[in-house]
Amino acid sequence: MTYERQPRIAVGPAPDIVFERAIGSGGGRVCGFDDHPDAVVWTGTSDEFPAALPTSVRWVQLPAAGVEDWLDAGIIRAHPQVTWTSAAGAFAATVAEHALMLLLAGVRALPDHLAATSWTPNEFYPQLGTLRGATVGIIGAGGIGRALIPMLGALGAQALAVTRSGRPVPGAVETVPVARIDEVWSRADHFVIAAPATAETEQLVGADELAAMKPTAWVINVARGSLVDTDALVDALSRRVIAGAGLDVTDPEPLPDGHPLWSLRNAMITPHDSNPPALRIPAFAEHVTENVTRFAAGLDLAAVVDPSAGY
Amino acid sequence: MTYERQPRIAVGPAPDIVFERAIGSGGGRVCGFDDHPDAVVWTGTSDEFPAALPTSVRWVQLPAAGVEDWLDAGIIRAHPQVTWTSAAGAFAATVAEHALMLLLAGVRALPDHLAATSWTPNEFYPQLGTLRGATVGIIGAGGIGRALIPMLGALGAQALAVTRSGRPVPGAVETVPVARIDEVWSRADHFVIAAPATAETEQLVGADELAAMKPTAWVINVARGSLVDTDALVDALSRRVIAGAGLDVTDPEPLPDGHPLWSLRNAMITPHDSNPPALRIPAFAEHVTENVTRFAAGLDLAAVVDPSAGY
Repeated sequence: MTYERQPRIAVGPAPDIVFERAIGSGGGRVCGFDDHPDAVVWTGTSDEFPAALPTSVRWVQLPAAGVEDWLDAGIIRAHPQVTWTSAAGAFAATVAEHALMLLLAGVRALPDHLAATSWTPNEFYPQLGTLRGATVGIIGAGGIGRALIPMLGALGAQALAVTRSGRPVPGAVETVPVARIDEVWSRADHFVIAAPATAETEQLVGADELAAMKPTAWVINVARGSLVDTDALVDALSRRVIAGAGLDVTDPEPLPDGHPLWSLRNAMITPHDSNPPALRIPAFAEHVTENVTRFAAGLDLAAVVDPSAGY
Repeated sequence: MTYERQPRIAVGPAPDIVFERAIGSGGGRVCGFDDHPDAVVWTGTSDEFPAALPTSVRWVQLPAAGVEDWLDAGIIRAHPQVTWTSAAGAFAATVAEHALMLLLAGVRALPDHLAATSWTPNEFYPQLGTLRGATVGIIGAGGIGRALIPMLGALGAQALAVTRSGRPVPGAVETVPVARIDEVWSRADHFVIAAPATAETEQLVGADELAAMKPTAWVINVARGSLVDTDALVDALSRRVIAGAGLDVTDPEPLPDGHPLWSLRNAMITPHDSNPPALRIPAFAEHVTENVTRFAAGLDLAAVVDPSAGY
């Protein structure tokens, strides 16, 4: 033991053996909410979050990579004495794999192939592309974007990253600050949207941005639906302004039955399942162990929420 | 110039500016078939190949990675004084990318997603997998298999290679000789078939092999249709003995209209278009330039056909 006292950590909204073990592995001790916890590991939604936290709590670990629900509900701002951490980064590789899957399936025209019932290669040839030599615009180079870059590199594609600061992202051929994002839409061949949902990123991709893209471009959104103007996207997909879209997130979400996106063949929809429970739970448990270890040792926590940034 | 005389190279069956330039870039000089060529670059099928070659010809470059048509037609055996080279390796990265696309789309249940018209993540959760941590059996580690290994590595998957000799394949966690292939079917999570079509590989994957695989396995075939027993595959897919298949090649090929594979949702068919003309022609031209450069310099050629091996 390198610390005097094991941190006492409550799990909510319900007891959960996976996270109790994760806390133990990190050197913490599980206790109840009424038992003066030093920290809370929360596995539920923001709606279920308790109105009042025990005053002993100094840290809350949230279960999602995007925490806009907690920020919007005022939960985080109501507890300025508490350090809040998200799960940002924990699911990065899983979601990046999903983004790559959608991008490759688009570039290789899989939706049209799956609809075919006849052997007609000549019909597919004109639309078949490759990621080899392609430039992929990565909008937001947090955990997911950074996990995606080496995957693209292995396929011979290069990453053109867009971030708030424009500070060089490792592995990207170039990093453009968001202030210059307009130049990126016509430069990259395809796009993966992986930025947090904030006021600044709302409807980042609208009619003008789609019109500036190459007609062969695929746009993959694994961030939040609010980053894309859905009506503009439906219009662009219908008129083939771009080649297609792969959407793990939508606006509105859930996407209602009968929505035009369901019937467009060049819209690939996955219902926010890029990070399914079977992959999410062990990844989040690892993240909890890592942060409990840091908390116990008095080190900086991973993925601390910055309310002013919105993530 | 490092050689005394520019090699004289004929292009057939028709003149083609792309390959004339590729020959020139390699230090060769284009000539006609009647003009005593030292070598021939053939861009057509085996059916169109001339019955008699000029006696001056010492090397023929064929346009395909798999040359079983030329072997079966006896063309290669009829000219023992000629060195024959295939395009093996030239298209490796392109076809490997396609194989990865099919594998990822399978593992992430894209066919079922594309058929959905309602937001039902709970229905997809049980079947969603990842390549992270998975073992992919690569049956035949020639150009395509070797190109695929680093792509899988970037996704956190490991390659279990099967080759004739079992000599370690760079990047594979293990290489198994084909004599021990039976142990691989139950060990790997998924399979990519990338071996040449020979008498030994015919119907390599049949009912017993499919039955030995995990029920979550996806089988991707980017080699030749003859390596898989189609009837056994249809049966295994229908009964969900395995999760699914991604087939760029089929037996019979072209797959006739109305064939059961067209109507199975867990069979993804791409009509031998993993290496479409827009990608194939420049890749083959590069290969021609490379081999002309070697020929002119008296070096060993790339992808020399070994008739006794069948590729």
